[in-house]
Amino acid sequence: MPLTLPSWINRQPMVELLASELPPPSLDDNIGDLDRLLRALKQNGFSPVRFPPSQINHLARQIRLGQFKVTAVLGYHLCHWELIEVYAGFEKRPVLGFAVDLGSSRMGFYLLDLQRAEVLAEHSVPNPQILHGEDILTRILFARKPRNLRLLQRLLLDAFNHTMQQMLKEMGCSYTDVYAVAIAGNTTMSHFLMGLNPANICKEPYIPTVNQFPIFPAADLKLATHPRGLLYLLPNVGSYFGGDLIADILAVGLHRTDELSILVDVGTNAEVVLGNRDWLIACAGAAGPALEGGVVERGMMAVPGAIDRVRIDRDNLKPSYHVLGEGKAAGICGSGLIDLIAEMFMSGILTVQGKITREIRSPLIVDTPDGPAYVVANVAETIDGQDLLISEIDIGIFLKSKAAMYTILTVITRKVGLRFDDLKRFYVAGAFGNYIDPLMGIKIGMLPDLPLETYQGLGDTVGCGAAMTLVDRTIFQDIEKVCKQITYVELNVNVELMNEFRAALFLPHTDPRLFPSVRVPTRTLG
Amino acid sequence: MPLTLPSWINRQPMVELLASELPPPSLDDNIGDLDRLLRALKQNGFSPVRFPPSQINHLARQIRLGQFKVTAVLGYHLCHWELIEVYAGFEKRPVLGFAVDLGSSRMGFYLLDLQRAEVLAEHSVPNPQILHGEDILTRILFARKPRNLRLLQRLLLDAFNHTMQQMLKEMGCSYTDVYAVAIAGNTTMSHFLMGLNPANICKEPYIPTVNQFPIFPAADLKLATHPRGLLYLLPNVGSYFGGDLIADILAVGLHRTDELSILVDVGTNAEVVLGNRDWLIACAGAAGPALEGGVVERGMMAVPGAIDRVRIDRDNLKPSYHVLGEGKAAGICGSGLIDLIAEMFMSGILTVQGKITREIRSPLIVDTPDGPAYVVANVAETIDGQDLLISEIDIGIFLKSKAAMYTILTVITRKVGLRFDDLKRFYVAGAFGNYIDPLMGIKIGMLPDLPLETYQGLGDTVGCGAAMTLVDRTIFQDIEKVCKQITYVELNVNVELMNEFRAALFLPHTDPRLFPSVRVPTRTLG
Repeated sequence: MPLTLPSWINRQPMVELLASELPPPSLDDNIGDLDRLLRALKQNGFSPVRFPPSQINHLARQIRLGQFKVTAVLGYHLCHWELIEVYAGFEKRPVLGFAVDLGSSRMGFYLLDLQRAEVLAEHSVPNPQILHGEDILTRILFARKPRNLRLLQRLLLDAFNHTMQQMLKEMGCSYTDVYAVAIAGNTTMSHFLMGLNPANICKEPYIPTVNQFPIFPAADLKLATHPRGLLYLLPNVGSYFGGDLIADILAVGLHRTDELSILVDVGTNAEVVLGNRDWLIACAGAAGPALEGGVVERGMMAVPGAIDRVRIDRDNLKPSYHVLGEGKAAGICGSGLIDLIAEMFMSGILTVQGKITREIRSPLIVDTPDGPAYVVANVAETIDGQDLLISEIDIGIFLKSKAAMYTILTVITRKVGLRFDDLKRFYVAGAFGNYIDPLMGIKIGMLPDLPLETYQGLGDTVGCGAAMTLVDRTIFQDIEKVCKQITYVELNVNVELMNEFRAALFLPHTDPRLFPSVRVPTRTLG
Repeated sequence: MPLTLPSWINRQPMVELLASELPPPSLDDNIGDLDRLLRALKQNGFSPVRFPPSQINHLARQIRLGQFKVTAVLGYHLCHWELIEVYAGFEKRPVLGFAVDLGSSRMGFYLLDLQRAEVLAEHSVPNPQILHGEDILTRILFARKPRNLRLLQRLLLDAFNHTMQQMLKEMGCSYTDVYAVAIAGNTTMSHFLMGLNPANICKEPYIPTVNQFPIFPAADLKLATHPRGLLYLLPNVGSYFGGDLIADILAVGLHRTDELSILVDVGTNAEVVLGNRDWLIACAGAAGPALEGGVVERGMMAVPGAIDRVRIDRDNLKPSYHVLGEGKAAGICGSGLIDLIAEMFMSGILTVQGKITREIRSPLIVDTPDGPAYVVANVAETIDGQDLLISEIDIGIFLKSKAAMYTILTVITRKVGLRFDDLKRFYVAGAFGNYIDPLMGIKIGMLPDLPLETYQGLGDTVGCGAAMTLVDRTIFQDIEKVCKQITYVELNVNVELMNEFRAALFLPHTDPRLFPSVRVPTRTLG
């Protein structure tokens, strides 16, 4: 879905273009050429302004060339402005920037016109690091060798440059008009981008090398922007709470509303943030892989060939499904799995324990070396000409993920003395959030039993949050506020947590009072 | 004379060294490694702190190496601090810096211990640009070709590196402990150092490329400091009022006292600043060359071989003199010339018009193709075995300089509605200031007829002012205040000025009431 910036943003871009006619020098007004420009900038509210000493000749020459009519490009650096460029004369140039959603699976690029706060183009590409590990832990292990770490960084930067250049070409724009790049990614991806070893991120006590990056020259990473373009990487709060989540919060405006909201981003981990304008609490846990479709035998990402929607006929137990890309089925993605398990449960195929009901006689329930399994798609319907089965083992793995998710939601909500009922908004972010059907999530006991209108799937809020920093520099204050405000809770594995988890392994839960809307089918009760 | 820092400076160096034991990370305190250091720095008053993104790996590794005991080096950047270096463990390292008096003839280097506010070593070398022009105007013309401009810059930087390395070697210090270089020079020299074309400086309306330089990495100029050492160039106020004068003001504390003071720096130009803590007015004029010894036939700089003191026996008119370095005479420097002219006048050799009295019969007064001349040193006393003469032509040139100086002083003082009597302090800065005898200056009508105790010759106040910025960063506020406060007056050549100048061409002046202490010798009246 196309990126839409929130309506409440201010039109105060990270990079400003200012045309100015300077009073020509005279004996009575004999300050230096560059000081003359800086004086004018100050009168327009830009102060203090710094400039790169190596560029003084170039910048000052433009002032003379334009006979004291100049167009200055200024980059925001939190505590000062940087004079990025000076053009001779009055120039109506575009001020472009890229916002990047640096995901571990896919990367979303957005080309923006900063002056108009407009998205000009968007494009998404796979994260090229996938070659060295689908999941991020494999990449972290791979990166232990310094040359591998450098390789992972180079893969990212090459993909950045390639994609950015292609998008610019398609739009007929020049890289010299790109003055800023804002990037949001999880903590590990941010480390990879910066060439930092993320080794300590995945071992207790889970410490990143750095959370808060300064705004710095994009040229430091050899990005193909204007030579003095800026790069801004959204800060992390912790190893499992990265700039991507900060971007989510910004895009949703979680930190600006009185309403109590919860935001869940399911990626490799499930990351959760809960709060409102006054406080924010966050945690993360390993709920993701199975939900993302990464662990289950025939699981896959939500790409063409993946079954993303499933319904099961209550009478004949026959499945009907939708395949992304409309071709034959190759596997099943997270939202498909949730549908499938929910439908299997609601049609009585699964018991509350998540076992396939032995009493059912159906050609769709077959025996395998892994025990009984349900045929989601048969040989004629799959790409590889094999039955697409879901076994009890697959289901067991999946239930652990859904139980982990529900446990995390329970623990974090209870931690602040609240109940699910208190939540006015439940945002589901990430690729997952675009596909998941909350009703199905409730039926399997993964999501709390809230009114359906409470749930809201989000588009690319990560890209959106990054884009917001480009078009509205007051967002930096929001970011600072959010980072200060957030209490990040590391979920210690303890008895309470394990009890919660075990109860959530059932469908929908051992305590049916928690899911009043879910009517457990009678067949499974038998 | 050795550099002495004023007693009123604060011990708040531009670069700070801070040893810190960070709390080790835990699940409850899981911020990033570098953020952990930054948090500790903030608790110690250093905020905001930026760090170079390319150094994150290195800086963070030191924190782990030191097991969270670290020594941080922080550089002051006016609106933020820069994390220059992190050493593992507690390190008692020196924090060194160089202060440089970037003169057009000589360059003074001072190696300082910033923590102790101590000058460790000092060394002075000729400005290597002299090869391409003794006077600065020749160099400006030479620099019109870009490659010559680059050559002039390289000459300076090579000399900087050579001198700094030699001084460090002699002191057994390492360049990696040099974290800052502060440089004060006139506007043209600052331009040369930065590789900026000073062409506009010497033509109306006399506009420098830039007056205010940001603090920037010394590595930008390839100076042999710590790789992330800082470079600070004192700002200029105008083309003829450079960072050297700002340094003078700082060193003298002109801007901090209630007393009305005047400060004169005689170099290529005579630069004058007048004022107190409430206001400052400045101007400059071409009074210098002859006073510096640069134009008179046998004139020379105050280097070995130069006659710097002269007395003349009132009876036999025989000169006695002092030669710098105690060898034979090679020429005569500025202070020697002032003495000589004053003594010639007081002994009746010169008329009030500055002509050699024809009536005098003396073997010391000889005829030359340039007219009559006085023998200051004879063939036996000079290096080249030739008489060292001063001719009427020389004297005429010199009188123009002294008249220009007196005119400037008159005009600037009158401009603010004051009289010389109002001046409580009269500082004479520059190499010249160390040698000039105010009594002699008064006798020739170059300096106003004030009580001698009003006059104070200064040492290397330029180097001192630069050094002050290294050991006391609050000086940056002083600099900002001075730059804002100073009214720089461009002296327009007009009728009033020309009349003043013509009157001042006489010895001591056409109006003897201005010099009541100077008793004009009767012989010259005859």
